[in-house]
Parts: sequence; structure tokens; C-alpha cells
Amino acid sequence: MIFPKFEVKKTTSYGRLGTILTAHGKISTPSFFFCSTKATIKGVDTWIIEKLNTPVLLANTYHLMLHPGADVVADAGGVGSFMGWNGPTYTDSGGYQIFSLGYGCVSQEIKGSPRSKRYLKISEAGAEFLSYRDGSKWCLTPELSIHVQQALGADCIFTLDECTPYHISYEHTRASMEQSHRWAQRSLTAFLKEDSVYKKTHQGLYGISQGGIYPELRRVSVDFLNSMPFFGHGIGGSLGKTSVEMREVLDMALEKLCSDRPIHLLGIGKIEDIFDGIAKGIDTFDCVIPTRLGRHGGALIRPNYWSDAKEDYHSRSSINLLKSCFKNDHRPIDELCSCPTCLRYTRAYLHHLIKSKEITAGSALTIHNIFFMNTMMEEIRRGIDLNIMPEVRSKWLGR
Amino acid sequence: MIFPKFEVKKTTSYGRLGTILTAHGKISTPSFFFCSTKATIKGVDTWIIEKLNTPVLLANTYHLMLHPGADVVADAGGVGSFMGWNGPTYTDSGGYQIFSLGYGCVSQEIKGSPRSKRYLKISEAGAEFLSYRDGSKWCLTPELSIHVQQALGADCIFTLDECTPYHISYEHTRASMEQSHRWAQRSLTAFLKEDSVYKKTHQGLYGISQGGIYPELRRVSVDFLNSMPFFGHGIGGSLGKTSVEMREVLDMALEKLCSDRPIHLLGIGKIEDIFDGIAKGIDTFDCVIPTRLGRHGGALIRPNYWSDAKEDYHSRSSINLLKSCFKNDHRPIDELCSCPTCLRYTRAYLHHLIKSKEITAGSALTIHNIFFMNTMMEEIRRGIDLNIMPEVRSKWLGR
Repeated sequence: MIFPKFEVKKTTSYGRLGTILTAHGKISTPSFFFCSTKATIKGVDTWIIEKLNTPVLLANTYHLMLHPGADVVADAGGVGSFMGWNGPTYTDSGGYQIFSLGYGCVSQEIKGSPRSKRYLKISEAGAEFLSYRDGSKWCLTPELSIHVQQALGADCIFTLDECTPYHISYEHTRASMEQSHRWAQRSLTAFLKEDSVYKKTHQGLYGISQGGIYPELRRVSVDFLNSMPFFGHGIGGSLGKTSVEMREVLDMALEKLCSDRPIHLLGIGKIEDIFDGIAKGIDTFDCVIPTRLGRHGGALIRPNYWSDAKEDYHSRSSINLLKSCFKNDHRPIDELCSCPTCLRYTRAYLHHLIKSKEITAGSALTIHNIFFMNTMMEEIRRGIDLNIMPEVRSKWLGR
Repeated sequence: MIFPKFEVKKTTSYGRLGTILTAHGKISTPSFFFCSTKATIKGVDTWIIEKLNTPVLLANTYHLMLHPGADVVADAGGVGSFMGWNGPTYTDSGGYQIFSLGYGCVSQEIKGSPRSKRYLKISEAGAEFLSYRDGSKWCLTPELSIHVQQALGADCIFTLDECTPYHISYEHTRASMEQSHRWAQRSLTAFLKEDSVYKKTHQGLYGISQGGIYPELRRVSVDFLNSMPFFGHGIGGSLGKTSVEMREVLDMALEKLCSDRPIHLLGIGKIEDIFDGIAKGIDTFDCVIPTRLGRHGGALIRPNYWSDAKEDYHSRSSINLLKSCFKNDHRPIDELCSCPTCLRYTRAYLHHLIKSKEITAGSALTIHNIFFMNTMMEEIRRGIDLNIMPEVRSKWLGR
């Protein structure tokens, strides 16, 4: 059997059910992938991540290329083996980090925060940047990205694309899209080359659609992607500034995308956006939100869950355990949650750990948030299967 | 049955076997206790600590008194319940932290490092200090220490003593010892008082012997302790500057100590010192070394274990995984170790995590070191039972 392989099991107006079969196991879709950026989810060991029924870890080509280096990871047998993870893995192209370090990330841009001033020079060849570790000059070309991702050996990998800032002109977006298409072509050529040092037989390549917020460009990009033999599609480029804009862009990006390939929405992880994306036909997501939130004291929670919860936090999808209202709250985060954190710890204890700057707080909350997302995704899959998605949505979104 | 209860099972020249029965389970001795200072072992969840066969967690009265406060912990049902730990717990008196913050700790003193300048005023009443959190003034009296430790509700607790620096005169040591004896008497009176708010029926109180490096004072202190109805004995005061001096002081401190009580050696955790202490009759130890070492990249290892190991680290009891010689070392820390870290991770991966400043490194190494200590202590108990201690010592110490 040739891996990876995608099968659609059921398509409904609430989303579709499917399976991505990889050499390291089956991914049931819709699925949410966690980011193991530098080959770890910060503060949580992989044997614990496995116990939480985590489907996939997505590691970062940019970081691993700079340290420990693709050769060390390849010697270890690939990124999964390196980090002691037996399940499926993905890697991104490395582009997002380079561009966000150069332009500043999207949230900084939207908030008007000062941009990073790091060196970044984009040319037809690729993206030239300086290592954050030692200042050495690198040029990430489509070919180098594929080479490194083959060395890292994940089950699925992505083509290099230019990640443009949010508010650029139609002309700029078009030029960037066309360059990303040429890079996608070069990535595919490098990927298919038979004599590459780290050529893998069980790796699938995702192309990434572009076009920003412009319907015409989105259509052009979809046509381009459909015409190329990629295993999967990533939805890239600017998705707009708000959830409403994102839904419009997704409509454009998904309208004509061929439906026999898995569709991945890059960098999206808010609960509401996940439900909306799935309804539009997205199969998989990745985002740092659940794990980053945990490290900063945030616990994901179903809205309106505690009938006696205080007004100021019960309507949200997370609670911030740093708040002093939790000092004497001897309940678990969620009394129905069966994650190791909710089975053992109270909000008062977690509040104490955060106030005491204990890293155990970050581990414990990350564990809860991972389990929360995995449980929610499992209920979503069941919801699609049993046609009870309105109930599932209401349970996890409160509306 | 009244808890705690101590039973000696077997006494040999290599050490003695025993059992401390507590309301939260049995502690087989000799035993090594881990320090959960602020009610956590940094970076490792209590459900994981339990899986590693950890016998006891020792929490810190000084820290918990300042945050979250004894009342919060009492409301949670005591320190074990607060931190989600089902097994036995100990607390110290809080004195060590106050005195080490005032005087500087022993290692700083021995190394000649600059002392801390924190406010500390010792009087007959107790030790006056300022909170490291908000600068508020506190006076830790023997009675307050007992009150707080009853609120924290550990299975075994300690009397407040003055922790003197290493190199003080005979006269100063004697005066300090006499004051500590008066504090011990006040502690016991407070402990036995029937109408205390947080009075516990299942708590045992340890007295602590003093006398520094002076044989005559050690004898006086032992006589004093033997005459008082403490559940257990702690060996306190200066133990000297070297392992050789420590062995001499232990001989003085143990010679006439009544043998029907468990004997705890405070703050000792080097492998060699543990073997020596056990041979002299110590039942239990506590120390931050194994967990602190793990957070700083150190993995405990049996000397001479790897036949192909490099000269520069194989004769030691730990390896520092920050060293570049581990960059491509795709072996586990110890191939015969069955801890979760050794089953999943290589030295190369741990080296990468440390170099990348990932907190997962600290968790993974702490887990290994806890498991290492617990496995060693189990083999020591078996070694005493089966009269094969020379073989056990040779396996874990290399000599």
C-alpha cells in the first residue's frame, strides 16, 4: 500500500468524515494537529501526549533546520523517532516563521504592534534570512525546504510559499501568488526527484492555495492547485482580519477545490473557527493556541458549563487561572473532564502554581487543553457520523 | 491504629530495614524523599511522580505559609490533597529556608560566595524575617511552625530549629543548640495541645539533634532528644564540610540515639552519602539534588555503565547532557533503565531540548532522576534483606 492515502467516508452540510492513512497510523478527520515546534510540545512529554489520544504532531522545519540540524534528525530516524513519538507527523515548509520574523506576525500587524526588524530578502530563488541562533546567512529555497523536510521524514509535508502580510494590494497579492505557484512547481519537482539523498517513499506533499482576500486570485490559485498532483491542499495566504472575513475567504478557497484530497487550514485554532471551517469542508487544522494558552495560565472550557460561575468568565471559551477569584476555588477546571489534570488538580492549586511561577502549571494546563481539543474533535466526528452536529456545537460553543 | 507507626524489620551492618506506617500508606525504609517545595516537583505532575513509585513528597512550610497560605491548603484538605498526591507527605519546619536566606546556604558559605543580605533577626521568641513575596514582616516561632504544619496536615512534621552556619565556634554552637532544645520543647507542647485549630490525630513529630561538629554537644543533644516523646529523630546542625567529616559527625549523632524511632538525615542526597548514611543506621533522607540536577541538564547514571563511554564523564554519578559530545548520541541515558524518558528519548534529543531551552528537558530529566533514585532505594532495601549490599553498592557506586 502506498502512504499516505486519503479516503472520504461521509459528506454532510456540517462537515465531512474521512481518514488519512499514513505509514505511522490512521488520522480520523476532521482532526486538529498540535504544534511540536522544536520537536516538543513545551513541557509535555510525548508519552503523555500519546495517552491523551493526540492524532498528529506538526513540527517546524525552520527551527529544526537551524537546530539540531536536519542531519541529526535524519540520523535519529526522522522527526517522529527523534522526539519519541510513534504516531503520524507533519512538518511545515519553514516559510511561515521566516516571513513572520521578517514582517512581524499577523496578530502584531492587526494590533499595530511594532514590527520585527529582522533581515529578510525575498527573491525568485527563495527567502534569505539570518539564523536567530548564530546570525549565519541562510537562503530557504523551495528545493532546500523539500530537502530538509525529506530529511525530517514526516508523513506529510508542505510546499514553500510566501506568507504575505494582511493588508497588501491586489497587485502585490497577485505577484506573490504567482511566485508561490512557481515555488510550488519547483517544490513538486524536487519532491518527485528519484535520486534525492533523503527521498522517502511514504511521504505526501501538500500544495498551498494563495490569493489573499481577492476572489479572482483565489479562483486562479485553486485552478493551479487542482492541476498539480499534490496529495493534499493547504489553505494559505491572508484569510482576512476577522472570523467573518475568514469565512468569506474560505468560501472562495474551497468552492472549486477538488474534493478527493485532504484540506488543511493552516494556523487556525479558535473553537468557533474550527466548527465553521469543518462545516465548510476543512479536514484538518493546526494551531499553537491550545498549547500556548496553557503555558500562560489559560484553560479551555465549555461556555456556560458551571451554573454558578461568575459572569466575567463563564461566557468565554477559556478561563485565566491567574485571576484571584480562583484562589479558593477547590473544584477542577471541568468536573466532567477526565484528563489527568482535572482528575487530580483544583483551580486553587493551579492558581497557586501560576502565582508561584512553577512550570508544572504550564504542563498541567497544556495537558488539559490537549485533552479538551482531542475530546472535542472526537465528538465532532461522532456528531457528523450521527447527524447530531447542532447538539455538539451547542455543547462546545454554547450557541 | 495510631499513625504514624515505625517498625524495624531487620538490622545489619549495611543498614536496617523498616516500615513507617502512615495514614496515607506505608513507607519502606531506607527511603529517599523528594522535595515538593512549593507543593510541586518542578515540571512533573503528581500523577507521573506516583507512576515512578515515589514513596514520599516533602513540602516546604516556609513557602506554603507565604503562598498560598496555610488556610488555603487546609481548606483543600491538606498539602497532599492540595497537590493531588495520594501518598505520604512530610513538611519541614520552615526554619532552613529562613536561615539559609539570612545566612546564605551552606554551599555558598563553603564556596565563599557572597552571602545574601536579607533581614533576619533571631531571638528567644523565634526568627523574624521579611516575606520574599511582599516584604511583610513575619516571626516564625516554634508555635507558629507547628500551627502551620498542622494546617498543612502532612503525615510527619519537624520541630523548628536554628540552622547554624558551618564554621561557628563551640560556644556559639552550644548556645544555638540550647535555644533549639528550648524551641523543640515549645514545639512539642504546641503539638500536643488538645484544642489547637488544626490539631491532627494522625501526625508524627520529629525532633532534630544539634551540636555541629562537636562530639560533646552532639552527645548532650542526643540525650535531650531521647528524653522527649518524639515520633522520630532528625539529624540537624552542621554536618561538616566534607563527606569524611559528615561520617564522623553521623557517628557522634547516632551513637546513643534510641533505635526504636525512625532517623531522618536532612538535606543529604549524594549517592555515596546515602550508602554511607544507611550503613550507619539512617532510615530516611531528603534532598533537592536529583530534581534540581535534572532541571539543569544532569542525568543520574551508574558509573562505568557504558563500556564505550568517554573518559571525561563515565566515572561520575551523572552526565551533563548540555555537553556537545551528546549531539549525535542516539542512545538512551541508560539502556537498562525503564523510566519513560529512557524508553522514549535519546541523549541527542535531550541535548537538543536543553540547547533549545525547552522546559520539556527539565521534566524528562527530573523523571529519569526520580526513577533512578527510587529504583536504587528499592535495590538497597533488597540488598539489606538478602545480604548482598556489597554487590548493590558496587552496581550503583562503581566501587
